[in-house]
Amino acid sequence: MFSTEIYRQRRERLQSKIKSGLILFMGNEEVGMNFLHNAYKFRQDSSFLYYVGIDLPHLGVVIDIDNNKETLFGNDLTIDDIVWTGPKDAMKDWGTKTGIQDIRKYDEIISILQSAYRSGRTVHFLPPYREEHTLKLHEWLGIPPQVCADKASVELIKAIVSMRSYKQPEEIEEMEKAVDISTEMHELFMKALRPGKTELEVAGLAEGLAVSAGGQLAYPAILTVSGETLHIHARNIIMQSGQMALCDIGAETGMHYAGDLTRTAPVNGKFTNLQKDMYNMILNIQLAAIDACHPGILYKDIHALSGEMLLEGLKGFGIIKGDIKEALAADAHTLFFQCGLGHMIGLDVHDMENLGEQYVGYTEDAPKKMNFGWKSLRLGRALEPGFTITVEPGIYFIPTLIDMWRSENKLSDFINYAELEKFKNFGGIRIEDEVLITENGHRILGNKMPPKTVAEMEAIQQH
Amino acid sequence: MFSTEIYRQRRERLQSKIKSGLILFMGNEEVGMNFLHNAYKFRQDSSFLYYVGIDLPHLGVVIDIDNNKETLFGNDLTIDDIVWTGPKDAMKDWGTKTGIQDIRKYDEIISILQSAYRSGRTVHFLPPYREEHTLKLHEWLGIPPQVCADKASVELIKAIVSMRSYKQPEEIEEMEKAVDISTEMHELFMKALRPGKTELEVAGLAEGLAVSAGGQLAYPAILTVSGETLHIHARNIIMQSGQMALCDIGAETGMHYAGDLTRTAPVNGKFTNLQKDMYNMILNIQLAAIDACHPGILYKDIHALSGEMLLEGLKGFGIIKGDIKEALAADAHTLFFQCGLGHMIGLDVHDMENLGEQYVGYTEDAPKKMNFGWKSLRLGRALEPGFTITVEPGIYFIPTLIDMWRSENKLSDFINYAELEKFKNFGGIRIEDEVLITENGHRILGNKMPPKTVAEMEAIQQH
Repeated sequence: MFSTEIYRQRRERLQSKIKSGLILFMGNEEVGMNFLHNAYKFRQDSSFLYYVGIDLPHLGVVIDIDNNKETLFGNDLTIDDIVWTGPKDAMKDWGTKTGIQDIRKYDEIISILQSAYRSGRTVHFLPPYREEHTLKLHEWLGIPPQVCADKASVELIKAIVSMRSYKQPEEIEEMEKAVDISTEMHELFMKALRPGKTELEVAGLAEGLAVSAGGQLAYPAILTVSGETLHIHARNIIMQSGQMALCDIGAETGMHYAGDLTRTAPVNGKFTNLQKDMYNMILNIQLAAIDACHPGILYKDIHALSGEMLLEGLKGFGIIKGDIKEALAADAHTLFFQCGLGHMIGLDVHDMENLGEQYVGYTEDAPKKMNFGWKSLRLGRALEPGFTITVEPGIYFIPTLIDMWRSENKLSDFINYAELEKFKNFGGIRIEDEVLITENGHRILGNKMPPKTVAEMEAIQQH
Repeated sequence: MFSTEIYRQRRERLQSKIKSGLILFMGNEEVGMNFLHNAYKFRQDSSFLYYVGIDLPHLGVVIDIDNNKETLFGNDLTIDDIVWTGPKDAMKDWGTKTGIQDIRKYDEIISILQSAYRSGRTVHFLPPYREEHTLKLHEWLGIPPQVCADKASVELIKAIVSMRSYKQPEEIEEMEKAVDISTEMHELFMKALRPGKTELEVAGLAEGLAVSAGGQLAYPAILTVSGETLHIHARNIIMQSGQMALCDIGAETGMHYAGDLTRTAPVNGKFTNLQKDMYNMILNIQLAAIDACHPGILYKDIHALSGEMLLEGLKGFGIIKGDIKEALAADAHTLFFQCGLGHMIGLDVHDMENLGEQYVGYTEDAPKKMNFGWKSLRLGRALEPGFTITVEPGIYFIPTLIDMWRSENKLSDFINYAELEKFKNFGGIRIEDEVLITENGHRILGNKMPPKTVAEMEAIQQH
């Protein structure tokens, strides 16, 4: 946990942004994998971590704005708990650590919420992302499961986004740690990569390192020779010489800040000429995109810049033809770059995604475009100092998608399908780093970056 | 997956055991860690795996007994799914693999269940262990969330237990694999163990190995210098010379069969004399307990035998006094051995625990004892050929528990509290292997066992 003062101040600021009613923070519960007591690694809700900081299951916090009163709900351990899970701090000690005096048994949260809700007061809560949330809201407030998400408090969402978007110095420190562990994981990946190994064999080493460093993976490991598939998980598939392995892995620190880096390396340690050319094209786009990051610029404009550079590059390969600006305006780039250039990152790898992309990545005067490609851009708004974001351009040759577009003869003024056919099984490349927006520009996070140029990557793979 | 024939036969046998109505198998869903699309590693429900075998989320199977009809509910991928997660088999191909012809869209399961349920037919379902199950039962059948567990079908539970308890040859083969990977994890643990490392540092290596081998941990890693705490997870705590580290880790194979082994090793590679004596006492109990395993014997009798040997051994340390049989009858051993000697193991590390211990580990004529210590024995019934179980005696000096008993002067005719005080911070030891009950006796699972004697363990730690 950070110091008590940090949590107290955060809650105070939050209170000042909400007019009236009660704020409900539902701590997360343990989730049984295959039976109740064989639970997944516990992951606390990120907003609960941000405002309360207690990393334990079965807790709730209610902030009564109108009466300026905070209450922490949770149970002390029984002797049976101590036998099975060891002695732990008492609830009142946890209260002290987070700066809340009023501590009550967990179940008391129900009557307090019910009586407030029934008397017409507003209970502000966040949109559910686990069925446990839906069930609590249903049982506590009588909200039908289907509409729980709609009843979430936009006022609370906006208030939280207006705070969590701007990282505090101690948060940035944790995020540097997350990047540094992630960098180690990528170095391990590059050193371990060999023809004959399975994707999971190498991914396991990186996952183990995240645990050894006191945390876990920030998201399921993408380590794959099918790099064209955006969110494929590592499989029990043997990697072959001549293939590239795309590795998108990041550590979550013990404090639950996420790292998120991607590198794409040749399985046998040596890029082919074509791979090298494609790789350098993406690397140049990534460097230009990072370079463009500064306060005030719309991130969707940097995304568009990347799309334009990609089309320009693909023209060099004979895949794209015609006017590049026109091709971009027609979204020709989305055949090769179906996802977004990047996203906010913090306590969540897609920071605050559960609060709603329209509030986190966009603003009312610049809403999200919902057409293919653009709809997957999670961040479009103007960058501001204190934002931490990823910059991750890529190229993805997806055979099914290419076949679909070709069969429709889609954008054939710009796309040379005959030439493209030769690249259909090329796979995918992505290069990703994390960037902090500063007052004057940006800073790449991490004390060290994993090898990124062709020369650097081929060198480390020789080890 | 196993062959189609296996799943078809299993469902046929299951059908023959249920008189009438519909059997509902709810496949598991993805669970968001910190937001919807950042999900935990998907874990299919074990009974779904056993009877259907398809290891994917968002599926359901309904077996209509009265009309002898099986239906698989699930959706084919959209182009968006393919872009993000890659091409996958169509639902009809999955149907072929598991031997079900009738395939329908996922949402159609609702009307089919509702119309059956409303017309008074029985819908047999298993007890929920995730809120997603409760919510489905509530939304599909209108069952209030609080009573879903009570409405589970005892007939279905008993039928499943009568099948899953007896492992088939191809299951035993998978379980040997799970043990073999777990053995490698334990060897890695012993080789990596050093003063100055954290618990998580070493646990991470073992966890990584489980992933590299194509699976994952079968349960959260217990790797701790606080071995007296039964289910404590590995922590960010530095291990010291003189301490012992208890390592209870097991791999789940790609087919989801669990391994579960425990070893307790000195952090600096050398047992002290006292540690060696205590260790050998537990080792002798474990060897005797394994030796006692054969068809017909009540497992609770082997548990009692272990308790008796433990009391006898502790008499040698001056901790126990008086008549051993009387001390055992008075449950004096439960101060040191608060848990059970072992449990069924298979697709779940505590096999079928979600179906209810009273049906899995006990029988109506020999129900579970609910007093302290005995209530944690998950398996009491007579062993039968085909059962796979763990044998895991241990000794646990839990300071809080000792202080509590001492303050009550509990069983002071048998417990020498003054002497016990000297051992209060000794910690804990557990030794665990997996055993298959055969026609004539038993066989320890695994092609190789991790080092187990003091000499073997000290030898591998020198590497």
